[in-house]
Amino acid sequence: MNLKPIGVVHSPHKQAAGTPVQASMTQGIEGTVEVFPTYGPGLKDLEGFERIWLLYWFDRTMDAGLIVTPFLDDKPHGVFATRSPCRPNPIGISSVRVVRLVNNLITVTDLDILDGTPLLDIKPYVPAFDVFDAKRCGWLDGPGTGLRIADGRFEKPCG
Amino acid sequence: MNLKPIGVVHSPHKQAAGTPVQASMTQGIEGTVEVFPTYGPGLKDLEGFERIWLLYWFDRTMDAGLIVTPFLDDKPHGVFATRSPCRPNPIGISSVRVVRLVNNLITVTDLDILDGTPLLDIKPYVPAFDVFDAKRCGWLDGPGTGLRIADGRFEKPCG
Repeated sequence: MNLKPIGVVHSPHKQAAGTPVQASMTQGIEGTVEVFPTYGPGLKDLEGFERIWLLYWFDRTMDAGLIVTPFLDDKPHGVFATRSPCRPNPIGISSVRVVRLVNNLITVTDLDILDGTPLLDIKPYVPAFDVFDAKRCGWLDGPGTGLRIADGRFEKPCG
Repeated sequence: MNLKPIGVVHSPHKQAAGTPVQASMTQGIEGTVEVFPTYGPGLKDLEGFERIWLLYWFDRTMDAGLIVTPFLDDKPHGVFATRSPCRPNPIGISSVRVVRLVNNLITVTDLDILDGTPLLDIKPYVPAFDVFDAKRCGWLDGPGTGLRIADGRFEKPCG
């Protein structure tokens, strides 16, 4: 199970601290998804979709173990009950809005991904497949921290 | 970027042919997600969530190239404009409903994943993060095939 990057995300978010916690909290931040030319043919017909899922590799996270205190709460939780970037397999998913597709460059908004992040996959976002009713959201139903912007708690020190 | 399985999916779907195309088309099919004991502590507080995302490795797909004809249309499309299991990085995402969590075993419904599939990650499904309005869905807005059950077109021949 080896991954290969199919592209790279170009984003105004240069480090974790200051980056919106979720795509739904970005208020339209724009960036570019560069798909490597080898994979360009796989983008055919993508421009018809209003939103896409980006799957990517959290490449700057430290090893935080299996219990983490997420941005949105002040109590620790099991990592699989959070969307923390520090995970046994550090794969992120974000639904972003497609602005335009020109050659292998996809301009997107609602971007919560760090600049230079390796891209693993693109899938169309389809409400009929991806929208579900889910009334109970565990600890996220509590008061939480109200944080919408990340700090550097999960980021590997540079250098 | 090397992945390690964190568990395995136990499912009534033994082969691609006959398996629902999407979790939203399964009408409640039940199965079990076994998380390996090493990763058990990461499940703390997961039972509070009504639905979870499963990320997994499509381990029985053939190499289909970058242009595929998906189950839901009779025309070929770029693989990134489809949810085909044959992808440069064959990672699947499915939102399933949590029935119960006992030790490291999660009973789930709405399961569209093949039996024995390696599990990569679990994330809580959170409408505030995952539900977006997306009116335009490209070729999926067309008449399509109406297929809701897969055939074996993407499955590697056995043996």
